[in-house]
Amino acid sequence: MDAVIKQMIVGVDLGGSKINVILADSRGNIEGRDWRDTLAHEGPEAVIKRIIKSIKQVASGADIAGIGIGAAGTCEASTGIITFSPNLPEWHNIPLKDIIQREFGLPTYLENDATAAVLGEHFFGAGVGVENLVYVSVGTGIGGGVIIGGQLYHGASGSAGEIGHMTIDVNGPICKCGNIGCWETFASGTALAREAMRRIESGAQTTIPSFAGGDLGRVSAESVFLAAQVGDNLARDLIWRTAHYLGVGLVNLVNIFNPQLILIGGGLSQMGPLLLDPALKVVSERAFELPARAVRIELARLGADAGALGAVALVLQKKFST
Amino acid sequence: MDAVIKQMIVGVDLGGSKINVILADSRGNIEGRDWRDTLAHEGPEAVIKRIIKSIKQVASGADIAGIGIGAAGTCEASTGIITFSPNLPEWHNIPLKDIIQREFGLPTYLENDATAAVLGEHFFGAGVGVENLVYVSVGTGIGGGVIIGGQLYHGASGSAGEIGHMTIDVNGPICKCGNIGCWETFASGTALAREAMRRIESGAQTTIPSFAGGDLGRVSAESVFLAAQVGDNLARDLIWRTAHYLGVGLVNLVNIFNPQLILIGGGLSQMGPLLLDPALKVVSERAFELPARAVRIELARLGADAGALGAVALVLQKKFST
Repeated sequence: MDAVIKQMIVGVDLGGSKINVILADSRGNIEGRDWRDTLAHEGPEAVIKRIIKSIKQVASGADIAGIGIGAAGTCEASTGIITFSPNLPEWHNIPLKDIIQREFGLPTYLENDATAAVLGEHFFGAGVGVENLVYVSVGTGIGGGVIIGGQLYHGASGSAGEIGHMTIDVNGPICKCGNIGCWETFASGTALAREAMRRIESGAQTTIPSFAGGDLGRVSAESVFLAAQVGDNLARDLIWRTAHYLGVGLVNLVNIFNPQLILIGGGLSQMGPLLLDPALKVVSERAFELPARAVRIELARLGADAGALGAVALVLQKKFST
Repeated sequence: MDAVIKQMIVGVDLGGSKINVILADSRGNIEGRDWRDTLAHEGPEAVIKRIIKSIKQVASGADIAGIGIGAAGTCEASTGIITFSPNLPEWHNIPLKDIIQREFGLPTYLENDATAAVLGEHFFGAGVGVENLVYVSVGTGIGGGVIIGGQLYHGASGSAGEIGHMTIDVNGPICKCGNIGCWETFASGTALAREAMRRIESGAQTTIPSFAGGDLGRVSAESVFLAAQVGDNLARDLIWRTAHYLGVGLVNLVNIFNPQLILIGGGLSQMGPLLLDPALKVVSERAFELPARAVRIELARLGADAGALGAVALVLQKKFST
């Protein structure tokens, strides 16, 4: 592992809202960072230019072993192609791995962002030593990554773990992915913000808009969280509702995977017990007793860096395993 | 493997409606059988007596290597205890493995019935050589078994694969398991029969009751299937509806597991294309493109013997591995 320790690794987390690029050593110590908006509505070309600029800034002058990318979309790990992304409009079959590899002349690896994140938690975070682990990323959407028998579970074509796109309401709204009543249409940050706007438009009394600069169109999960922290009742109700739906999907994962550990990461995990406690209550009330007893459900430890550190772990795993 | 080939194995499939006990060799050739009603309402003691009687009948005079049991409930594989079963009333923490082992003085192994079935298909059926495989048993309830990396996936405490108890309708009915809107409340044989009775009671024109001896209380999935085969429109509609809901849950499994193969077994799989085709249509319309392209969804090959042959495979795997 000497070669690993000497060289640095670039980890890229490409999300629907933010791009987080870090420079880290093989123990996951972060020594450089560039953090910027994705501006996904500008389309793939503009976003890719932004990623390249960001990597150049972070990697400047360092001896780099490789680049790992975790991306918010369905990724074919074997080819490094992002085939589709509900949260990155116009991203269809984009060979991001090849583009970055050609640009920098460095070994590059691509995975779904939540798949990368579960590897990050398994290498550096709350999942060290855990054999059966499901990572749930609750942010713009809901993503997932699965470790089974201590290994990343990819499935037949590398897209396993799209847990945000399981139907939890067969009569629910159409999801951006084309499926009906997906978990992420109920329990993501986007769903939370949408419901907040709907309630405010219906005349609910709340301080939420004041945390969005008074602009209803800019109400986000963050504005709701800020309002909840100062005791806003609507904000607390809305977070409880989101947490309740989060719990409904967690029950499914507990019954299906019987995991040792479920880690809740992504932007909404910053809400801590406000999000986690009502979700855990649903699990204890509804999941099968045996798997409910076996599972710990906790907040992820790497926070906003889980994806980027996971991308670092990806390089370590791919380049230095034999 | 010589020892295996010489000795015979007993496989027990304990279902909510039927007990199927077979005597098979190590290649899965069935050389004896006893098939009887479970009569689950009589409670665990009566059912266990029935199982013992059935095994005695089948095993009489044979040289037996071991007994495998697949049971319709949550099973703790390590202890051989059935902790809970939605379809076997009063079965709470029943040490079935120990009871049978003491009775016959033979190595005995217990798994959930669908877990056993997936192993059966992997050893002897449609899943030979398939690395990532999900088995969906559609009968009285919906059970599941998962093979990952060519191995049975047990999860942390041996109850993984309870796919029938994932919520697909968060506003749906309460399931016998305590969860809300479980897949099996919509797409199982019980759900099909219940909906048939409801429609008939509402005055729908149909020949279904004539396939239940004219007794509305005895309308079953089988009566609906028989009516559908003679062109009964309500019966066809009801099966289409069940198949549609089956598809909704299959989409979830495709997105979550990205499996190579999903096998549909259990009693309702006898409906063949009538059940499979509408379900496949839902998958092709709603699942993520990448995993939808990667998966084959087919009828299981071992039919009503999947559970019992899986129980045989269980003995082979446990007793003769290493």
